Amino acid sequence: MNLADIEVIAFDCDDTLWLSESFFVLTQDRFTALLAPWCDADQTAERLIQRERGNLAHFGYGVKGFALSMIETAIDASEGAIPSSAIAQIVEWAREMMAHPVELLPGVIETLDGVKGRFREVAITKGDLFHQESKVAASGLAERFEAVHIVSEKDERTYRGIIEGLGVEPDRFLMVGNSTASDIEPVLAVGGHAVHVPHDLTWALEHAENAVDVPVIARLDHLLDLLA
Amino acid sequence: MNLADIEVIAFDCDDTLWLSESFFVLTQDRFTALLAPWCDADQTAERLIQRERGNLAHFGYGVKGFALSMIETAIDASEGAIPSSAIAQIVEWAREMMAHPVELLPGVIETLDGVKGRFREVAITKGDLFHQESKVAASGLAERFEAVHIVSEKDERTYRGIIEGLGVEPDRFLMVGNSTASDIEPVLAVGGHAVHVPHDLTWALEHAENAVDVPVIARLDHLLDLLA
Repeated sequence: MNLADIEVIAFDCDDTLWLSESFFVLTQDRFTALLAPWCDADQTAERLIQRERGNLAHFGYGVKGFALSMIETAIDASEGAIPSSAIAQIVEWAREMMAHPVELLPGVIETLDGVKGRFREVAITKGDLFHQESKVAASGLAERFEAVHIVSEKDERTYRGIIEGLGVEPDRFLMVGNSTASDIEPVLAVGGHAVHVPHDLTWALEHAENAVDVPVIARLDHLLDLLA
Repeated sequence: MNLADIEVIAFDCDDTLWLSESFFVLTQDRFTALLAPWCDADQTAERLIQRERGNLAHFGYGVKGFALSMIETAIDASEGAIPSSAIAQIVEWAREMMAHPVELLPGVIETLDGVKGRFREVAITKGDLFHQESKVAASGLAERFEAVHIVSEKDERTYRGIIEGLGVEPDRFLMVGNSTASDIEPVLAVGGHAVHVPHDLTWALEHAENAVDVPVIARLDHLLDLLA
């Protein structure tokens, strides 16, 4: 990667700038406990991820689709025995997840301060428009970006569109994020650069199928060392 | 309204370019039948709209939030007696609504053909990003617009941002849509123009609180007469 050529740095948001997956994991732990009378934890997890995978094409990403997948999993796994009070509990968890305060990850402010004025900065996040807009607003970071793109899918077509809109060549675009499937692979495929900041928790459907060869940093502010 | 000044025509999508509310009404009819053992039709409708109103700030617009509101209403109205098979049915309806083919309203193609080249045209639609993108793609109309804006709320701030992005003065912007609350009032408030195309079915939460004084047309293609 020739960093001298980079003009735009694009940041993923969920689990790159702020916590996200941990709230899904916490909710899933409560869900597992809820289903314990009918299903052991591993089976529940396996059933839920299968349901989520199946529902992705119907409902897209985000908390509301996750809630609907939990509800269907609960009914299936309990063979219909789940009480309606438990279903109401799941909807209540979804409301809590949507309202959860945004918690920035370590080093985020330092990183954005450190690249300010040296690069154009954008944010690219996928998922539920309403929830992502709420999180962007609550993060207090919106003003730091030239643009915040909320997209329904992070695929090659999406990145091509954003890069064209920025008016730069793909090799002057650097994406930084935690998901190899969403932040790294499609960016490399369209001729851009990427830096991987793995997060402790990454959703099973966000893992890349193949190994990728990009710089890996442990914390976002290590990006400043790479760019030094 | 001085139409000689109009440079940009913005079209609402749901129930202006294509059917939307009718699918919600059909689903609500099925929902009412489902709850008939516990609640009469009027009570069900009243409970559901109250739940939707309460959930709007948590879940935003769209089918998935509607499904979660139906589920909560079903549990409440049946005092927990609703069987889990009925809850599964509600989730299945949501999947059907998301997958429903797009049906253009009468006169849409003629209207877009008729204004082509004379005005800049954009589409502005609110709701679920994933579902709206699917509908825009399925409509076959995307290429006809300079831009398609999918927004989480159609308020003054949203319109101000879009009009600024277009680089025109507000009085050169004309919005055409079926919802007085979303397509007319906020546009007039920011200094733009609006034409109302009422739809037979408009969601209770889309009615304006006050009367608005704008041209009203019965079908979208009557816009061509206004612009003649």
